[in-house]
Amino acid sequence: MTHTLGELAAFLGGELQGPADLSIEGLAPIDQATPREITFITHGRFARLADQSRAAAFIVSQEYAGLARPLIIVAHPYLAYARAAALFAPPVWRWPGISDLAYLGPAVALGQEVSIAPLAFIGAGVHLGDRVTVMPGCVIGDEVQIGAGTLIYPNVTIRERCTVGARCIIHSGTVIGADGFGFVPGEAGHVKIPQLGTVVIEDDVEIGANCAIDRGALGATRVGRGVKMDNLVHLAHNVEVGEYSLLVAQVGVSGSTKLGKRVTLAGQVGVTGHIELGDGVQVGAQSGVHRSVPAGQTVSGSPARPHREWLQIMGHLPKLPDLYQRLKQLEQDVSELSARLDQEQEISKLKP
Amino acid sequence: MTHTLGELAAFLGGELQGPADLSIEGLAPIDQATPREITFITHGRFARLADQSRAAAFIVSQEYAGLARPLIIVAHPYLAYARAAALFAPPVWRWPGISDLAYLGPAVALGQEVSIAPLAFIGAGVHLGDRVTVMPGCVIGDEVQIGAGTLIYPNVTIRERCTVGARCIIHSGTVIGADGFGFVPGEAGHVKIPQLGTVVIEDDVEIGANCAIDRGALGATRVGRGVKMDNLVHLAHNVEVGEYSLLVAQVGVSGSTKLGKRVTLAGQVGVTGHIELGDGVQVGAQSGVHRSVPAGQTVSGSPARPHREWLQIMGHLPKLPDLYQRLKQLEQDVSELSARLDQEQEISKLKP
Amino acid sequence: MTHTLGELAAFLGGELQGPADLSIEGLAPIDQATPREITFITHGRFARLADQSRAAAFIVSQEYAGLARPLIIVAHPYLAYARAAALFAPPVWRWPGISDLAYLGPAVALGQEVSIAPLAFIGAGVHLGDRVTVMPGCVIGDEVQIGAGTLIYPNVTIRERCTVGARCIIHSGTVIGADGFGFVPGEAGHVKIPQLGTVVIEDDVEIGANCAIDRGALGATRVGRGVKMDNLVHLAHNVEVGEYSLLVAQVGVSGSTKLGKRVTLAGQVGVTGHIELGDGVQVGAQSGVHRSVPAGQTVSGSPARPHREWLQIMGHLPKLPDLYQRLKQLEQDVSELSARLDQEQEISKLKP
Repeated sequence: MTHTLGELAAFLGGELQGPADLSIEGLAPIDQATPREITFITHGRFARLADQSRAAAFIVSQEYAGLARPLIIVAHPYLAYARAAALFAPPVWRWPGISDLAYLGPAVALGQEVSIAPLAFIGAGVHLGDRVTVMPGCVIGDEVQIGAGTLIYPNVTIRERCTVGARCIIHSGTVIGADGFGFVPGEAGHVKIPQLGTVVIEDDVEIGANCAIDRGALGATRVGRGVKMDNLVHLAHNVEVGEYSLLVAQVGVSGSTKLGKRVTLAGQVGVTGHIELGDGVQVGAQSGVHRSVPAGQTVSGSPARPHREWLQIMGHLPKLPDLYQRLKQLEQDVSELSARLDQEQEISKLKP
Repeated sequence: MTHTLGELAAFLGGELQGPADLSIEGLAPIDQATPREITFITHGRFARLADQSRAAAFIVSQEYAGLARPLIIVAHPYLAYARAAALFAPPVWRWPGISDLAYLGPAVALGQEVSIAPLAFIGAGVHLGDRVTVMPGCVIGDEVQIGAGTLIYPNVTIRERCTVGARCIIHSGTVIGADGFGFVPGEAGHVKIPQLGTVVIEDDVEIGANCAIDRGALGATRVGRGVKMDNLVHLAHNVEVGEYSLLVAQVGVSGSTKLGKRVTLAGQVGVTGHIELGDGVQVGAQSGVHRSVPAGQTVSGSPARPHREWLQIMGHLPKLPDLYQRLKQLEQDVSELSARLDQEQEISKLKP
Repeated sequence: MTHTLGELAAFLGGELQGPADLSIEGLAPIDQATPREITFITHGRFARLADQSRAAAFIVSQEYAGLARPLIIVAHPYLAYARAAALFAPPVWRWPGISDLAYLGPAVALGQEVSIAPLAFIGAGVHLGDRVTVMPGCVIGDEVQIGAGTLIYPNVTIRERCTVGARCIIHSGTVIGADGFGFVPGEAGHVKIPQLGTVVIEDDVEIGANCAIDRGALGATRVGRGVKMDNLVHLAHNVEVGEYSLLVAQVGVSGSTKLGKRVTLAGQVGVTGHIELGDGVQVGAQSGVHRSVPAGQTVSGSPARPHREWLQIMGHLPKLPDLYQRLKQLEQDVSELSARLDQEQEISKLKP
């Protein structure tokens, strides 16, 4: 995985300043890079570390073109870093072909170059597209369909009839298609509502570790194209997540709620059921959203309200003890004023 | 799985209005049902969609008996929907018998019609009741006992000596009986308190995906009959959950806390340790309960307080910036009044 | 596992009061202990139960030396309880040797007395130290290194190149080394930043069930020696947790944040990314920490602030509706005073 600086500049579409034949063996942060590694400046605070850095070369924006070191100058250093990292990343582990130690049910349909590891379980009628990778410990239920190039890390469970698109990444421990939480209160306990629906994960979705995405009661729970979910996220039955949304760790979304496109839910956010968050809505960490939010709005707090309002309220909250003291003082002042005025009026009456 | 409308009406104990021989192939929401499917009206907002619905027939309450469509009229349409869904639900997947690809330890006792899938692990001395289903990837520790009819979805872990009742459903990724979080602070680090207890899950309990229910330090962590838990719920050691309680997703309950019967904890609630929530207590989403709550009370907020109090406080919170401005204005007004009164008294003194 | 009271006293380094040959078969809480079991008094509220207790003997501090029952008197009863519990704990389950039903990749290096259970997967080049235990359903990725005496419970996933120290305990369902959540916003969706780093877990760490600890983007996510983590905890990429810290259930820590030594995060706490919590910082349950906290401080609330400040604010919060009413009353009073003063001045002007 060694590349020359010239190759890297060409790959990144950047301008080369320095020796094209310089050999680069890896990528590292500016304060840790060795003379065989390239680094990058994505932020002013890193620029200050450039002089002491032992890095062989730097990926920078035009702003740092004056740096007297081997450079690749690009429009978007952070994006270039992501692309360079992909170049240096070791290939993802794949079992070569179909392991004898995996269980495959009847009528499984496999594309080209499918990888199924030992100790994986593939149910009846499952379809796996070209280059799908299923790692050890995964359980793929009957009639699940998985699109080309998708990567399923160890110990993932995908229940029957769910579908996962192409080029998705599902991290370990995640459960897709467990029953939604649906019960009718009854005299003799809660009566289970059978969850007849499925989960549909569209293309290019990444789902973190130990998430739980329930199947629909009727119809599907949907995760739109390009959505990225962090770890330990809960999506209830019939939730819909719009394209390119970002759900940070430990978020929970209740049943039948619809998130628009490019919605961002920060960490530990909770969203109640049966509401809609419009396109581009952003929700601050730990917020609790209990009613629909129009497109484009940023909300925070629990219950959530427009972010600026919430900031104002939070800014005043610490003043509450002082405010209370001042109110008591005022009550006393007003009472004294009132007494003085009573007295003044008494005196005044006695005058001619 | 085709049923006639007459059969359905009989099964649901409802009144038939329409052709008894009408063939029904499934169940769907009112706006998605095809002419081969039955739908249901559980809520006024759905009734408005009845005219445009292509559904073959409707499950309704007496209120909608005038609808000029094939009907089954029942006392509780929502309950009837749950029961009809069970009729149309595909049978739960089961491995026929005991797979050669499962591992069974010594002295395992199996009831009638037990199903153990490939890649399941069953420890020594495990007892599985009649019709228990253990799916792939499950690990059942030594001397675990599981009651008749219980369903264990893939990749569940049940640690040694725990017991699960009859007719329970445990969803994928859930861990029952991991060590409770118990340490004694010591000079040279935290000293582990061995967790010698177990977990006892009673009959008719359903537990969502990726939950964690710890074993007791001494004695048992208990989940009462008919309790329903959503995904990603945490129960610490020696927690007791009373019968028919509902724990929504991402709830956490700390050690030795006792929940009464029919308690409801909404999503992301946290409950501190060593307290008691009485029968019927309801806790609003994201609340933090830090002291015991008497039976029947509804609490909200963090720290939680009676729901109506919390609503009042939350209603006033947005007024805080305005309140602060008005307080400042008042201070100025009072100061001016005081000055005016001083002046008036000065003038008054000069008068005869 | 029967011990005499004399043996127990010697093992605990305590003073024996009572028959040295008394046979003790187990350990139980004071209200549940049988005449064959020993119990302990760690707290005044338990002392009151001593008279009715059927326990054979008591582990107590000097304070309860007057109790007319067989006693072991120790300096720290709670620590003595932990040590006695270890004595009575059944041995942890281990597969004897390497199961034929496990998969072992090439170039695996095994210490003495390693235990690998059926249905475990061990990747290429993995190093397992002496007495390491890997339970069923675990997936250990290529080139993972695990130190001596470490215990990996069922269905754990440890991804490639991560390292786990000696004497660690990893509970079921936990995922170590999944990709961090890193994306560059792009025109055509979010571009994944390959996560090239690893996770380093130091010695004597215990990690609860269903946790998710992501690998670093570059460099390592680190969990320091002696750290104890409860269930369902999320650590993002490049987080560092200092030695002997305690992370209670459902905590989430965002990327690149550094926790000092002996930090305590109570349940459901969220910590934002790229900040530092100094040594000994304590954070109250459900708090949201959004900026760095100096060593030794205790903070609470969301956003978190010094605990005493937060207590004061929370103490005043319920007064908000009353405060608002009193403010309105004051405004009216001041307005009336002002009118009275106007009138008084009018009258006064008319006087000579």
